[in-house]
Amino acid sequence: MPRTAETASFKFNHTMLRVKDPKVSLAFYQDVLGMDLYSEQKFDDFTLYFLAFNHDGRDLTQEEKNAARFSREGVLELTHNHGTENDPEFKGYASGNTDPGKGFGHIAITVDDVEKACERFEKLGVQFKKRPSDGKMRNIAFILDPDGYWIEIVPGQIKLILK
Amino acid sequence: MPRTAETASFKFNHTMLRVKDPKVSLAFYQDVLGMDLYSEQKFDDFTLYFLAFNHDGRDLTQEEKNAARFSREGVLELTHNHGTENDPEFKGYASGNTDPGKGFGHIAITVDDVEKACERFEKLGVQFKKRPSDGKMRNIAFILDPDGYWIEIVPGQIKLILK
Repeated sequence: MPRTAETASFKFNHTMLRVKDPKVSLAFYQDVLGMDLYSEQKFDDFTLYFLAFNHDGRDLTQEEKNAARFSREGVLELTHNHGTENDPEFKGYASGNTDPGKGFGHIAITVDDVEKACERFEKLGVQFKKRPSDGKMRNIAFILDPDGYWIEIVPGQIKLILK
Repeated sequence: MPRTAETASFKFNHTMLRVKDPKVSLAFYQDVLGMDLYSEQKFDDFTLYFLAFNHDGRDLTQEEKNAARFSREGVLELTHNHGTENDPEFKGYASGNTDPGKGFGHIAITVDDVEKACERFEKLGVQFKKRPSDGKMRNIAFILDPDGYWIEIVPGQIKLILK
């Protein structure tokens, strides 16, 4: 039950990450991870992309996607500040896992079969931070998104963790 | 529909943030935002706390929470590296929104009534980054969690954004 009636409507709607090049990031999140693009909002200096896994078993209309983007959980917002993709001065974004800038750690994707998912990631040329065979935790992996953000790959049932 | 059969099982399970003092953070996420503690895993040097909004309309057993923690979306993982809470040398974590360390931006909570939610946050002494009345975007707010991470408060229906 919600702890108070006042928060009963609350949902953890989205997590926002800045990305250098939306073409590269959208290819990764859509084609490698399998997320759908729910909406795209272009402003003068930046564009926002909202992605989520579609669990509805059918394609959604854009209207349904627009509604779901506000009302569901598990949405990823990618912010592109225009120009970073071809600015030689741009040094890239911090992953949050090293100083300075330590704070945010990772996002995590639950999959039914970590081994199989990671074999596919290998074939697709995805960068690994930790393969399932590395270290003590054999049933999890960490891959890197195009900006170097860590993405934990975890099984739906069991869980062992790195700090 | 999922873009490929290989990713049909994938879910955006959680987002991980490091926190200085779990007592303070748990009070905030449970009492102010209304999340439930789904599971807690203590290791030698660190402890992980998994929180989520319970939308089931009833209290869950610990077993149900453990299962949901792996199988659902919208989970927040808080990592506490033991000792930071009373280490005078510890300088705090980066919010991700200023250099150096810019990358991660914020998490967002959908609420049914932004004005009402923010009035309650004010009464509870929550720090604001942007009140609904600040700036041009009147129907969103940004509050700060105890570590200074930005939390966007957005209405379930309409959406205007800050980069």
